[in-house]
This record gives sequence, structure tokens and C-alpha cells, in this order.
Amino acid sequence: MRNDVPDPVPLAQALIRCRSVTPADDGAMAVLEAALAPLGFACHRLRFGEIENLFAIRGEGGPHLMFAGHTDVVPPGTTGWTTDPFGGEVRDGLLFGRGATDMKGGVAAWISAVTDVLARRPDLPGTLSLLITGDEEGPAVDGTVKVLDWLRDQQKIPDCCVVGEPTSKAVLGDTIKVGRRGSLNATLTVHGTQGHSAYPQRADNPIHRLVRVLAALTGTPLDQGTEFFEPTTLQVTSFDVGNPATNVIPPSATARLNIRFNDRHTEASLTAHLRAALEAEAPRHELAVSCSGEAFLTQPGPFVAALQAAVLAETGQAAKLDTGGGTSDARFIARFCPVAELGAVGATMHKADESTPVAELRALARLYARVIEDVLA
Amino acid sequence: MRNDVPDPVPLAQALIRCRSVTPADDGAMAVLEAALAPLGFACHRLRFGEIENLFAIRGEGGPHLMFAGHTDVVPPGTTGWTTDPFGGEVRDGLLFGRGATDMKGGVAAWISAVTDVLARRPDLPGTLSLLITGDEEGPAVDGTVKVLDWLRDQQKIPDCCVVGEPTSKAVLGDTIKVGRRGSLNATLTVHGTQGHSAYPQRADNPIHRLVRVLAALTGTPLDQGTEFFEPTTLQVTSFDVGNPATNVIPPSATARLNIRFNDRHTEASLTAHLRAALEAEAPRHELAVSCSGEAFLTQPGPFVAALQAAVLAETGQAAKLDTGGGTSDARFIARFCPVAELGAVGATMHKADESTPVAELRALARLYARVIEDVLA
Ligand SMILES: [Zn+2]
Ligand SMILES: [Zn+2]
Repeated sequence: MRNDVPDPVPLAQALIRCRSVTPADDGAMAVLEAALAPLGFACHRLRFGEIENLFAIRGEGGPHLMFAGHTDVVPPGTTGWTTDPFGGEVRDGLLFGRGATDMKGGVAAWISAVTDVLARRPDLPGTLSLLITGDEEGPAVDGTVKVLDWLRDQQKIPDCCVVGEPTSKAVLGDTIKVGRRGSLNATLTVHGTQGHSAYPQRADNPIHRLVRVLAALTGTPLDQGTEFFEPTTLQVTSFDVGNPATNVIPPSATARLNIRFNDRHTEASLTAHLRAALEAEAPRHELAVSCSGEAFLTQPGPFVAALQAAVLAETGQAAKLDTGGGTSDARFIARFCPVAELGAVGATMHKADESTPVAELRALARLYARVIEDVLA
Repeated sequence: MRNDVPDPVPLAQALIRCRSVTPADDGAMAVLEAALAPLGFACHRLRFGEIENLFAIRGEGGPHLMFAGHTDVVPPGTTGWTTDPFGGEVRDGLLFGRGATDMKGGVAAWISAVTDVLARRPDLPGTLSLLITGDEEGPAVDGTVKVLDWLRDQQKIPDCCVVGEPTSKAVLGDTIKVGRRGSLNATLTVHGTQGHSAYPQRADNPIHRLVRVLAALTGTPLDQGTEFFEPTTLQVTSFDVGNPATNVIPPSATARLNIRFNDRHTEASLTAHLRAALEAEAPRHELAVSCSGEAFLTQPGPFVAALQAAVLAETGQAAKLDTGGGTSDARFIARFCPVAELGAVGATMHKADESTPVAELRALARLYARVIEDVLA
């Protein structure tokens, strides 16, 4: 236990008090700059479109450990709050506010950890950096992606990265996310030949063809899952013909589907799979595919092992490596270096009365301090 | 060849000149009454709702042969006519006009036939009748169905019936219709459990269930057809979900289908078939069935054999027994007695420049005369 790590609560409160609902910044980046500059960080404010981003870096040479996070939050909503969502109140041992867990609390905890480590190890080798975006909860176009492009141009790509998303499920440290499933949407349109339902031999029913295509696609699992991933899922989300006549075979039929896929698949392989299913039953078709993110996995190795060791030492938890849940900016970082997500218990994220126990936030700061020291030393 | 049969063309022209687009009569029934009363027919004008119907009967005892027909016509449409649709022009050997084939021509031919037979056989045994409706092309609610109820009440149900629909395909007499397929519409709604497409294990996708139901229903033919019927067909005509979200599994899905069925099935048996398919894959469902007519078949027997013999003798054609095409009022008559449809070549029915060759109409009158004599004598 590192009981001398500075308290992250005041910094978390200062961040919560910025009304930084995407794309607004409302001073959040300035709060961070004010905390990091005195620690010797060079702060680069990177504005893309209407989004404020911050890249702060300190030190030279390897290893280079980056922390990635965001100061933007989802809207508080209009009901269910018992306190000001932007007030940062501490009540009954809980810090309340939009972003308390996702993830202003995590950002504050990391900066407390950095403060502690640099105070005790002024000679710390390697490089520490923070990539903080204001566009994680929004379109994610003018945030992490563009900062990473800038880092590549500046030759400042890190060796490994911790993302501060609230990954813990029940207890701090019980879960480290080492990957995420990919997500792909597809629209399948099948063409037939319109005709009277009394004379189907003169027509070609596109609904029958599309039913066969979808029966094939949904009838066999795409895989059985892997060590780190759940099985890939394919869900048909709509099927639309809109034929008002009861005695007419329509000329075409359209279905939409969503695939959440593990690292055994890619946008390209799934597109080929869908195309083959269409070719088999419906030669005349159109297929439109939109992939919002490929699956990624940071393979177990020294970096992930160091995180697990730090979690065990600091919390007693044997952190489970997990790939569930939705997307995060980790999917962009994974293109450049090993990345893992490790943070607070996310139970209240995006909900009314979002809150994090003060004790847990302090424990997270201690955990991050050990991560920094273990990875860099 | 019975070259002394009176020419049906003048009576057909008189009928065509009545603008009797359903539900209008415009004097058509009066034209028929004026032709039939002098031949000794008792004429019963039966008005139901806004529809004029005529039942004319002559003679006593069996056998009782009825002719069924209609004087109403479909609208002429606004384009494509080279002559007045209600003019009854004869040009180049063709009688033009809406109803020339369907079926004012046929009604006129039957009355010519009756005139001929009664002139030559004043002692003809049995009973002759005509059921002429003005509601065959419309809803068919206030026409043949209600006249048949009246006949039943009057104990005047015939022993057999010829319907004068234009059944011939290429040459007069090539086809006798001895039945019609039934038609059934069904709406299938499957309920599931709405959810996020990323977590399908917490939802229950109704589209996947309905796809399996429809794959089963369309994957196996309902039958292989019979001696007189084509195979039953099942066509899905629409499939609608209307889910605007790409990441949501919808709560329910609906499909509609149309079944054209032969006499191996009934509304009840098909409803049970659909229900079983739903039960197998989608326990939570709704099924709505609407049957516009059961299949019917007049089994081959003395009546149909007599028609075939008359056709062969008069036209040289070996008439094919057929059950194809849409519905006619024969489906109502079949509930009471053997019924067969035999009439002109229907190529131009319901089209612009509907017309019938004058020679063919005269041949039809001769054919009908032989039918009357063969069945009654
Ligand atoms: Zn977040
Ligand atoms: Zn007709």
C-alpha cells in the first residue's frame, strides 16, 4: 500500500465542475495543464475541429508508457440525480458527478500517481505521456485518432498504453480489458422478379431468397469464441419489404444485420462471408458494409503481465483478462502499440448519480503508481 | 354442325350497348328478360342491395341444367380502344366491346342455343334455367351467392351447371374448367425480446425465429399437384420490421403470405399447418388467416363427360380439364351441384379492344345447343 500517494479527489472535483459534455471542453484541459506543467510535462494542446485535445509528455527514451483518457462526458440527463451532476459533491464517502467514473476520476488518479512516482523517483527512466481527448463519447473523429496521427508524425508513438476506462466489474482490479470485439453493420438487398402471387412460376420471390440467406447466416455460429473472446454474434436487426398488396410478389427485399466479432474475423473476412451467403441463394443482390471498428487483442506478454502483477500487489485481485463490452478509443491505439484498459468500477457510468467511492479512487491512484513504477523501472 | 342455330351476335350487341360496369345494370337484365320470356321462361328479378340479378326457369322435373353467367363488366379503361367499348361494332369479322368475351357473348350464345333446342325439341324433358348476376366482377356479395340461397329456399337447386366464362385458351373448346384453386392470406407476427445487438444473449431475436418459420414453410412443397390441379403454392408477399436502429434487436417481426391451394387442402388444414410451423420455432406469435375461397373440383363423371363429348362432336377438340386461373362464381355453385366452366377464347378479356370472332361466337352457340340436348335428352 502506498499511502503517501496524493489524494486524487480535489483534481477529480475540479474536472467534474467543468461542464465538458462532448464536444464542450469548458476548461477541463486547462485544469490538466495546470496540474501537469509543474511536474515537468511539455503540454501540447491539439485542437481538431471543435475538439480540444491534450498531449503531455515528460522524459526521454524508452520505455515510453502512455496513459490515454478523456475529459468529455455524456449528457447528465434530466432525471434521477440527487445532487448537481457538475457539482463534485462528496457525500457518504462517495464522489458524485458526471464523469466521476467515466473517466475524470481515472484521469485524476493517474496524475496523482505520476506526482507520487516523480516525487519518490526523480531519476525515473523512460518517458511518461498522457493523451487526453475531448471526443471519446462523441463521434471520436477529432480526438484520439488525430492525436495518434500527430504522434506518428512527431515520432512519439509510445511502447505501451494504459487506458483509464472504468473496466472493473465488482471490485477494483478484477478486470483488465485487453481487447474489444469489432462491430460491423450490413445491409443486404435481394432482387427478384415481381409478379402475381397466383403465378409464382412467372415470378422470382426475393423474400424467399433472402429468408434462405438469413437462415444460413443465423443457423451456424461464426465461431465458438476464443480464450479471450466471446463467440462472434450475428443479429438481423430489420427485414423490410413494405409491400401493401396481398397478391403481389415484390421485386426486392432488404435486411440489415449487426455483427460483433472477435479477432478470428475482420471486416474483409466477414464481408466475404456475407457475399458468399448471398451468392449461394441470391445472385442478384446488393451488399453495403460499414465497420465501426475491427476487433483487436493485446496478446498476453510482459506489458499485460506487469499490469496483472501490479493489480495483485496493490489490490489482491487476480485480474481477469476480458474483451467484453462496447468500443473505446483503445481500438485506435491498438493499431500502434500494446494497449490495455484498467480503471475504476464502472457500475454507475452514464447513469444518474454517477459516483465513485473516494476510497476506491485513492486505491486506483496507488495502483496506477505501482503500474508506472513497474513498467518504467 | 348445327347451322340452323340463331345468330347470337344481335343479342350480344344489345347487351354490350348496356353500360353495365359493376354494379350498374343499365337495362341488361331487361334485354335478357325480353329474350327469355317468349321462350316460356319464368323470369325472377332478384335485387340484392344495388345489384340486379335474374333467375329464369323453364320446364319441370329432372334433369335440371342451369347456365350461370354475368352481365356486369369491368371498366373499359381510358386507353387502347379503337372503337366504342359500349358500341358493339362488328369489324373484320370481330365483335368488339367490353364483355364481348367476358361474358355477354357467352350469355347471348346460350340463349341462341336454348332458342334452337326448344324450336327443334318442343317436348324436351327436364328443366332449363339461367342464373345471371350483375355482381361477378365486383365484390360478389349480392350476386350469385344470394341467388343460390334463394334457389335453395325455393327448392330449385339444379342437378348440374355450365358457367359461361371464357375458358378456352387458344381454340374454342380446348379447355373446360372443372375446379379452381383456393386462395388464403395469412399474417404471421412473431414476438421476441428487445435488446442491444451487442448482447444478444439477453434478448430474443424475433426476426431469426420468423426466418426459420418461413424457411420451413417455403422449403418444402405443400404437395406435388394432383391429376387436375397444379401444386399448391405458398408465397411470402411481405416481411416487415421497420427497425430504424442498427444496434437494437426489435421486439417483433411480421410477415404476410398468400397460398393458392388445390383440393388436398382447406382453410382449416392450412391454418393448422401455419400454426404448427409457428409453434415449432416461435411459441409467442399471432396468426391471422383470411380465406377468399376454398378449392373445389367437379369430379369427372357423366356431366363432365357429356360436356367433353359435345365439345368433341361440335369442335373436334379433346377438351382438357383444367383448374388454373383466378376465381369465378363457379366456386359458389360448386357447393350445391356439379359445375363446369366452358366458354369462348378469353385472350382479350378485361383488355382494351376486347373482342370475339363472330364465327367463334356462333360456334359457341352451336356447342351450347349440343350440350343442352345431350344433358337433358
Ligand atoms: Zn469512457
Ligand atoms: Zn367473367
